[in-house]
Amino acid sequence: MGIKVHGSPLCCATLRVVAALHEKELDFEFVLVDIRSGAHKQQPHLSLNPFGQVPAFEDGDFKLYESRAITKYLTYVYKSKGTALVYQDLKQKAIRAAWMEVEALQFDPPATKLIEELVFKGTTSTQTDMAIVEESEAKLAKVLDVYESRLGESKYLGGETFTLADLHHLPQLHMLIGTQVKKVLEERPHVYVWCKDILARPAWEKTIALLKHA
Amino acid sequence: MGIKVHGSPLCCATLRVVAALHEKELDFEFVLVDIRSGAHKQQPHLSLNPFGQVPAFEDGDFKLYESRAITKYLTYVYKSKGTALVYQDLKQKAIRAAWMEVEALQFDPPATKLIEELVFKGTTSTQTDMAIVEESEAKLAKVLDVYESRLGESKYLGGETFTLADLHHLPQLHMLIGTQVKKVLEERPHVYVWCKDILARPAWEKTIALLKHA
Repeated sequence: MGIKVHGSPLCCATLRVVAALHEKELDFEFVLVDIRSGAHKQQPHLSLNPFGQVPAFEDGDFKLYESRAITKYLTYVYKSKGTALVYQDLKQKAIRAAWMEVEALQFDPPATKLIEELVFKGTTSTQTDMAIVEESEAKLAKVLDVYESRLGESKYLGGETFTLADLHHLPQLHMLIGTQVKKVLEERPHVYVWCKDILARPAWEKTIALLKHA
Repeated sequence: MGIKVHGSPLCCATLRVVAALHEKELDFEFVLVDIRSGAHKQQPHLSLNPFGQVPAFEDGDFKLYESRAITKYLTYVYKSKGTALVYQDLKQKAIRAAWMEVEALQFDPPATKLIEELVFKGTTSTQTDMAIVEESEAKLAKVLDVYESRLGESKYLGGETFTLADLHHLPQLHMLIGTQVKKVLEERPHVYVWCKDILARPAWEKTIALLKHA
């Protein structure tokens, strides 16, 4: 019983869930899914996530998938444990929800392409496609201009405290900051301060320990 | 004061918010943003949505963007009005949240490409790209296989009642059902029954009245 995360440290969505578990100070078992051999597209993983993606999550007999729904579940069910990660005020809650959508729909697509080209292709024999890098970097820069303005108004994306809206960015920021994209972050001072701040959280340090097993 | 939606009936995200307002039986003012002339990329719209997208939302002096965050806001703040659209039980809430992620991240991307190719390009002189249609249709079909299995277990995506997880699909389903993609829906009996059911909701009928002004 207890909490189990089936995933891969190579996958941002898995790291996102693990980060939330550490912020909530919850114990869990990490079950490695070998995505390089395609284990996520086969049984038994498909019975945990019919879309054939990682992570999949279990809490006793309750099963869930989609990383951003799993992190929300943790805030609903383990409300009083660890960091709150959400707001109680309804308007603040809605603003935090908007920035969670922004992460998933505007930040994540170019960030994922950049990670694919600049991080993962570097570890295989596949050549980085510089046209994709350039296009994605331009898209990301435009999105981060709005972040820069937002983070000039409030310390975190949702408001004055760290929430899921910030946490959901951690895996991609961690990977991008080790590439040429660091410059795009540095050029935006509020964004860069925010990055350094959230990447230094103890729960994130614990999370990246997983990468040693990648 | 009151609620204002700044958007375009040509935009699925705008229709999504209007559908939620009708389900919640809320009065609102619709402010047309002429996206064909690029009004969403200019002031004054940028001050309502810095990402230059529609819709933008106002409730008195509270401003919000991202359609799926706006619909959530309506369920938080107008809890006792109209259809609930959410669950109270925390596990059901998490499953509904997972299906909201599935809509945004798995259903919406191929659906949007198909609408672009099969609906909007039909109204302009731009030629439909059949390679994109074929690829997106195959992706959508694979996603809908999982829906078919889910909708064989429960009447709606989140469980036994209609929630935001279903509602968020309405604009794309409405547009796709008038194209060759209807066949992809019909081939999956549970999916097709669900489509017909949710598209027949009175709140959706009210929503599409907006399309007359497109």
